[in-house]
Amino acid sequence: MSESLEQLTAKLLDSYAELGGINHQDGVNLPDKQTVKEITQQLLYLLFPGFFRKNHLTNEDFALDTQQRLQEVCTSLSHEITKSLEYAPPHGLKACGYAAAAQEITCKLMTQLPQIREVLSTDVQAALDGDPAASSMEEIILAYPGLEAIAVQRVAHVLYKLEVSLIPRMMTEWAHARTGIDIHAGASIGSSFFIDHGTGVVFGETCIIGNHVKIYHGVTLGARSTSGGQQLRHVKRHPTIEDHVTIYPGATILGGETVIGKGSTIGGNVFLLHSVPERSLVYYEEGAVLVKSKPQPGTVPPIEEESFIYMI
Amino acid sequence: MSESLEQLTAKLLDSYAELGGINHQDGVNLPDKQTVKEITQQLLYLLFPGFFRKNHLTNEDFALDTQQRLQEVCTSLSHEITKSLEYAPPHGLKACGYAAAAQEITCKLMTQLPQIREVLSTDVQAALDGDPAASSMEEIILAYPGLEAIAVQRVAHVLYKLEVSLIPRMMTEWAHARTGIDIHAGASIGSSFFIDHGTGVVFGETCIIGNHVKIYHGVTLGARSTSGGQQLRHVKRHPTIEDHVTIYPGATILGGETVIGKGSTIGGNVFLLHSVPERSLVYYEEGAVLVKSKPQPGTVPPIEEESFIYMI
Amino acid sequence: MSESLEQLTAKLLDSYAELGGINHQDGVNLPDKQTVKEITQQLLYLLFPGFFRKNHLTNEDFALDTQQRLQEVCTSLSHEITKSLEYAPPHGLKACGYAAAAQEITCKLMTQLPQIREVLSTDVQAALDGDPAASSMEEIILAYPGLEAIAVQRVAHVLYKLEVSLIPRMMTEWAHARTGIDIHAGASIGSSFFIDHGTGVVFGETCIIGNHVKIYHGVTLGARSTSGGQQLRHVKRHPTIEDHVTIYPGATILGGETVIGKGSTIGGNVFLLHSVPERSLVYYEEGAVLVKSKPQPGTVPPIEEESFIYMI
Repeated sequence: MSESLEQLTAKLLDSYAELGGINHQDGVNLPDKQTVKEITQQLLYLLFPGFFRKNHLTNEDFALDTQQRLQEVCTSLSHEITKSLEYAPPHGLKACGYAAAAQEITCKLMTQLPQIREVLSTDVQAALDGDPAASSMEEIILAYPGLEAIAVQRVAHVLYKLEVSLIPRMMTEWAHARTGIDIHAGASIGSSFFIDHGTGVVFGETCIIGNHVKIYHGVTLGARSTSGGQQLRHVKRHPTIEDHVTIYPGATILGGETVIGKGSTIGGNVFLLHSVPERSLVYYEEGAVLVKSKPQPGTVPPIEEESFIYMI
Repeated sequence: MSESLEQLTAKLLDSYAELGGINHQDGVNLPDKQTVKEITQQLLYLLFPGFFRKNHLTNEDFALDTQQRLQEVCTSLSHEITKSLEYAPPHGLKACGYAAAAQEITCKLMTQLPQIREVLSTDVQAALDGDPAASSMEEIILAYPGLEAIAVQRVAHVLYKLEVSLIPRMMTEWAHARTGIDIHAGASIGSSFFIDHGTGVVFGETCIIGNHVKIYHGVTLGARSTSGGQQLRHVKRHPTIEDHVTIYPGATILGGETVIGKGSTIGGNVFLLHSVPERSLVYYEEGAVLVKSKPQPGTVPPIEEESFIYMI
Repeated sequence: MSESLEQLTAKLLDSYAELGGINHQDGVNLPDKQTVKEITQQLLYLLFPGFFRKNHLTNEDFALDTQQRLQEVCTSLSHEITKSLEYAPPHGLKACGYAAAAQEITCKLMTQLPQIREVLSTDVQAALDGDPAASSMEEIILAYPGLEAIAVQRVAHVLYKLEVSLIPRMMTEWAHARTGIDIHAGASIGSSFFIDHGTGVVFGETCIIGNHVKIYHGVTLGARSTSGGQQLRHVKRHPTIEDHVTIYPGATILGGETVIGKGSTIGGNVFLLHSVPERSLVYYEEGAVLVKSKPQPGTVPPIEEESFIYMI
């Protein structure tokens, strides 16, 4: 090599020393990406037992298996939450109390797993009711990315409400990477919720979504402007979607004061920046699209036709 | 912990007992997600031999290696298909016949691998012809997500036609998670097919796509409405795309009776709900977009300008 | 089985022999997908030390750990680059010189890691400034897919400029699979760059992007037409985005001569095929969207209303 390994190492170490902002060394220990992924997978397993393992699950070993998994995930999650408390200490909590506080938070999440299961069972039913291509509950649990994304978000949302830093976002980003569905852990989502296909869905931190809402891929529930940056941190920036609303693919709905009234339907690709009342139908007139014939091969098209051809 | 591990376990077990719908225990054994993933990877390997392994592949050990892989994937796939037959037994087949039927189905798929390879070689050529950024066949096989998605779908489609439940969808969802391309196993797709970039592509179950079709990212071939739910299960709900059609990014084409005529070009972001004849050009007039100047910094913009600024 | 394993193997081997185009055997050995993935992960580790490992990183073992990782990745990357030189030999280089040339290229990349770190630290800051939901630098490094995608692209771009074939694209496609963000290794991107959410972003090979540019999910910077295929290979086909431009979700900007002037804002879903001057605001008028009331349940809607309902 034109430069020795020692030289390369020295330069890189210099860069680590100078640009402290993007590395992490000594000081507090951040939650670990790989471990948070494993915890999330274990939680999915506990929410849908028997669905994600190679071997047949029998009634006999079921209780023991459940208890062992619970124990493992409690230990591991407490450990990661302790690191997140060290990183961003809650007001009024002393360092010696972090481990106990982390255990308490972990326990609160675990106690809520049965309620999360109840809501998720309404989500599975909503998928079956809403998708003619779905053949069974089992197919939805085994193969629908929307269900995986909402299951992870419902768990992460509990930790978000308990003011755990970093971990909720790491969980939802794990789901985002797998499904293309990016629901912020802060979003509040009702029961019987169904996302079909899902790739490209984005829900911001302060969304509020009612019951029986159906969302297709590419739907954004976003902020009108984020040029205020960190000043907007605790402002409601994202829309409210009331019960029984359907939003078709590619629609974008923006703004913290935007409310989509109960029972409304938002058409595909609609770009909406204001509220609409209950039972609204929102869509573009189809007339806007132009349909022309291509010129015959070998003929010279008139100038404007040519520009169309080039255009597309 | 404020609640003991035993108490947490007991509550979770209660929840499993009550909400039978979302767990799976004893009874039939569903196909396993991890195993279906491994089978799909092995099938990709058999379709593109030598592309996905660390060691150099020599002519000498090639035949033996191929036979061993085939044997492994046959055994494993037969086993998973048996579970899927137990789960959704085909009409008129007795339980004692499931294993033999699964072997027969597996064999039918394996027999078709050479034909699938033939079609895939036209797909690789279509990518090379269609993308100026592509430098070689090898680059396309090593790095183009569209090719991986269509390879998996062509395999899954064979199993779908043989009426295997669950597994075809699990295969295409594995590809969806990796590529962001969601092609239902039921879609019927011709030769020389090319998807560029691909993230956000959705093709519904009853699509029919001709030869030499080129599709960009974010294209939806979907249903007009799914509010009929399970009643629409076997109706043709998705479009037909004839030969030599190109569909640019973000276009949405909906409806089971919608036919895009041969040689047509559909522009970016077009939202189309009806058929167009052969050789159509479909696009939005560019005039619809407004271009304004931002106000000078420090000046107060007129009210309507301000609302534009806030708007975006 | 109705067909023996030997018969199946023979047919598949026949297919391999006939359709040489899509398999790779003996001859040169292509870069390996799994190894390129591991190299990319190691490079991410060197760029953000301490962020991606389970154990606490101490000051004591830090220098040694860095040197060991550097050594490993140098060896491994040189080996893969040698294969890529064998596959597409640079003009005037003899076969006996490939290994040395690969080492030289590897060293050039490694020497640039400190500069890449400098640019990435401006990207992390841009994310913090640009997203009210971001709570800290650490959260951005641990959980923001946009940062991962741009980190990988900045590394791949160095190799692209050094005319290494296959590997740069394999690296960016690994990031694409994980993040849904598809930035070609050829794209030239300035400092303080931020992609929020990211799923569905596509930047073509010949894009030029200035400093302080902010991009949302679903944005395409693409070519106007690719029907010229391989003839367009070295033509500038993708837009230039000047400094301080923000592009909102779902916007599509096409064409190699299209220049978005400094300080401009491009609204959501905008489809733009021409240049705009400095400080432009580009958006659709909101009036284009129709808002109607749904008919009362039980009443018969007038014909045109019914078609709206069916339409969506």
